[in-house]
Amino acid sequence: MPEFRRVLIANRGEIALRIARACRLLGLEAMGVYSEADANLAHLRLMARSVCIGPAPASASYLDSSRILRAAKLLGADAIHPGYGFLSENANFAEAVTDAGLVFIGPAPSVMREMGDKIAARRHMTRSGVPCLPGTEGALPENRSEVETIAAQIGYPVIIKAAAGGGGRGMRVVSEPAALDVTVEGAREEARRAFGNPAVYMEHFLCHPRHIEIQIIADTHGNAVWLGARDCSVQRRHQKLLEEAPASDISPSVIAQLGERCAAACRDMGYVGAGTFEFLYENGSFFFIEMNTRLQVEHPVTEMTTGIDIVETQLRVSMGEPLPFTQTDIRTDGHAIECRITAENPDSFAPSPGVVSQWTPPGGPGVRVDTHLYDNYRVPAHYDSLLAKIIVHGHNREDALARMRAALSETRIDGISTTIPLHARLMNHPALIKGGVDVHYLERLLELKNP
Amino acid sequence: MPEFRRVLIANRGEIALRIARACRLLGLEAMGVYSEADANLAHLRLMARSVCIGPAPASASYLDSSRILRAAKLLGADAIHPGYGFLSENANFAEAVTDAGLVFIGPAPSVMREMGDKIAARRHMTRSGVPCLPGTEGALPENRSEVETIAAQIGYPVIIKAAAGGGGRGMRVVSEPAALDVTVEGAREEARRAFGNPAVYMEHFLCHPRHIEIQIIADTHGNAVWLGARDCSVQRRHQKLLEEAPASDISPSVIAQLGERCAAACRDMGYVGAGTFEFLYENGSFFFIEMNTRLQVEHPVTEMTTGIDIVETQLRVSMGEPLPFTQTDIRTDGHAIECRITAENPDSFAPSPGVVSQWTPPGGPGVRVDTHLYDNYRVPAHYDSLLAKIIVHGHNREDALARMRAALSETRIDGISTTIPLHARLMNHPALIKGGVDVHYLERLLELKNP
Repeated sequence: MPEFRRVLIANRGEIALRIARACRLLGLEAMGVYSEADANLAHLRLMARSVCIGPAPASASYLDSSRILRAAKLLGADAIHPGYGFLSENANFAEAVTDAGLVFIGPAPSVMREMGDKIAARRHMTRSGVPCLPGTEGALPENRSEVETIAAQIGYPVIIKAAAGGGGRGMRVVSEPAALDVTVEGAREEARRAFGNPAVYMEHFLCHPRHIEIQIIADTHGNAVWLGARDCSVQRRHQKLLEEAPASDISPSVIAQLGERCAAACRDMGYVGAGTFEFLYENGSFFFIEMNTRLQVEHPVTEMTTGIDIVETQLRVSMGEPLPFTQTDIRTDGHAIECRITAENPDSFAPSPGVVSQWTPPGGPGVRVDTHLYDNYRVPAHYDSLLAKIIVHGHNREDALARMRAALSETRIDGISTTIPLHARLMNHPALIKGGVDVHYLERLLELKNP
Repeated sequence: MPEFRRVLIANRGEIALRIARACRLLGLEAMGVYSEADANLAHLRLMARSVCIGPAPASASYLDSSRILRAAKLLGADAIHPGYGFLSENANFAEAVTDAGLVFIGPAPSVMREMGDKIAARRHMTRSGVPCLPGTEGALPENRSEVETIAAQIGYPVIIKAAAGGGGRGMRVVSEPAALDVTVEGAREEARRAFGNPAVYMEHFLCHPRHIEIQIIADTHGNAVWLGARDCSVQRRHQKLLEEAPASDISPSVIAQLGERCAAACRDMGYVGAGTFEFLYENGSFFFIEMNTRLQVEHPVTEMTTGIDIVETQLRVSMGEPLPFTQTDIRTDGHAIECRITAENPDSFAPSPGVVSQWTPPGGPGVRVDTHLYDNYRVPAHYDSLLAKIIVHGHNREDALARMRAALSETRIDGISTTIPLHARLMNHPALIKGGVDVHYLERLLELKNP
């Protein structure tokens, strides 16, 4: 894989800024793209050059691969970093980038495709020794009695998921045999409508799991290293709000065993770049749910605990460099927490677009803020509502919680509603302070507040 | 020593904000003071309450101990943190604070007094095994031939220093016996005028030393721990511009030996709080120059490499808590660099007061900014010109230099002149990149530029 000099960042907001910083660190030219709604974004100043790629709706700009490729040509870019969201897990886009003679900063399109197909991914994981939920190897058969037999073998409750799915769509839980038939039909219909593919599969359903994930990074020389675990159980409608590293109350040796299997799976599939293995965790067991073949929003908590710059490393391995560390070099130190601050009403989660009249970030030792915010920033209604990620690092979890409380209390975002009050409440909630909450914790808490 | 709840911060600018953050972390109420020129400082918002203590000149506000004490009474404070500069090394102030029944966050006044007298400090260090420059134990005698004999024993070149001095005043170098007599007389006269005390002492003069210092922290239970070394050799007129931790090319075991002696000296004198032992280093030998009995501007590079929050620890030991770590817990990791960004012309160092029309801080992994800046901040002409400290942490020195280069390149302070261009130049200068420059390096470099 060739060295490259100019990296087009096919994204917006805080992650475009984060990637531009990593490019500058390595002396690479960062090239920006922006929609008409984003023309005033301050971080575009950090780009060597930037071009407008179309109107505000993402479908006409950030999600339009042909416009991104034309921008790359125009700017003379020789590599594209997709960030997260948008085109970052689109194997066709990755293929088009490669076909155009550019470097796609991520794994090979064939690997993205395999991991994007949940049934294929699950089959691959089982082969590599990564633990999966008891469930079907492939799509459920059409025959009703066969489906009933499978469900009985897996054990109720079971969950039906779209093979091509994501974001919770096409997912349904069945608690008893009587409801099986109609639920499977409903899930198939929803999957067909949402993804153009009615194939569904079945898994055992966990009642109170935690969401634990393993960060990995791999190079083109067959090296793959895992960088510890994150706990991302604080979610609302499958959207993460708060992430931590490491995962509290799970023994490091158990995580190490899981991490080794994930790294082995990466080596097996020839994975290159950063990636995340997502698991559900209940009663001491891990169950693979999916792999994200891209950088994740919550990558900073891993950076804060390992000292590894994940985006810098993505760029290096994409240039063909071997990983600058081995597994034995990786030590995790202390505890990190990230709060996602979004432009939403903290009670109703209604979007809160508008102008940020004043932005005062927190600071001091152990505090990092990843944000594209500035005074008079207008929050567009078109995109993800993430405004800033506040990340803290402490000697231990208690220290990190104290630092996050202090950081949230000094943060000021005037002019719009944000989720800061919700995060401040979480930082003082006994269950969160105790640690190890499950993925339903936040929704239970919110219902209690607004019964 | 009693617990306290309300801490008056007898300072301004970035360090007042830094201390307020540490108070908030521990759940203490931070109380602010400000001069008439500082009434709009944004960080005052982080104080539970603040009062105006007088007109802009520091002598009528920040340096006026009676006004500080009255503010403390008015605000119901039970402790005072002096920060650095202003009253921080004034033993009479510390005594007045203690006499008023408040906790002074620092060592006992008697210890401050002893360390403030350079001859007494030197005597103490020699007793504790801390290496000092060959020099007189006390003030030079009046008798000329005795002075000549002493100089010959110490070895030329020698330096004459005011016993009560600081900031370079009253310091003169003598290269040969012929110039000795007139120089000593001149130094006495300058010392008398500057400090009201003509006593001078003599030391061997080092031609190309580095400035290396050891951070220590001690509690009321007899524990003292050293937190590694800093290299602060990049100076202009005895003012530090750039600091690093650790000190490159000095073996950790040599630093450990020195650190142990500093910690022992602290235990010997019953030192409490944070403090710094400053040394000159030449040809593999260290020579004590002075102890600073307070927090230092450059403390963040130690925080970034050790993970210890020095200001938090100051507050804890002042409340009577034992140090939460022992010497064996202290590990230094990677390399940190701090650039002091001041409101000065980067060529002439002329002050550049005015309004900061726009302030864009750097960010990302490994970057910390300690600053009280905000958009439309008016830089007052009355005080130290420090605007912001940019601190970076990397795996090693090369990585830290790259991160500082990237951080400086994205920092924007519009409306006034700052030293950012000078720091950017230093980051690319071969001698600085190589490391281990001496205390004259910067002045040589600046003269070369403006011959």
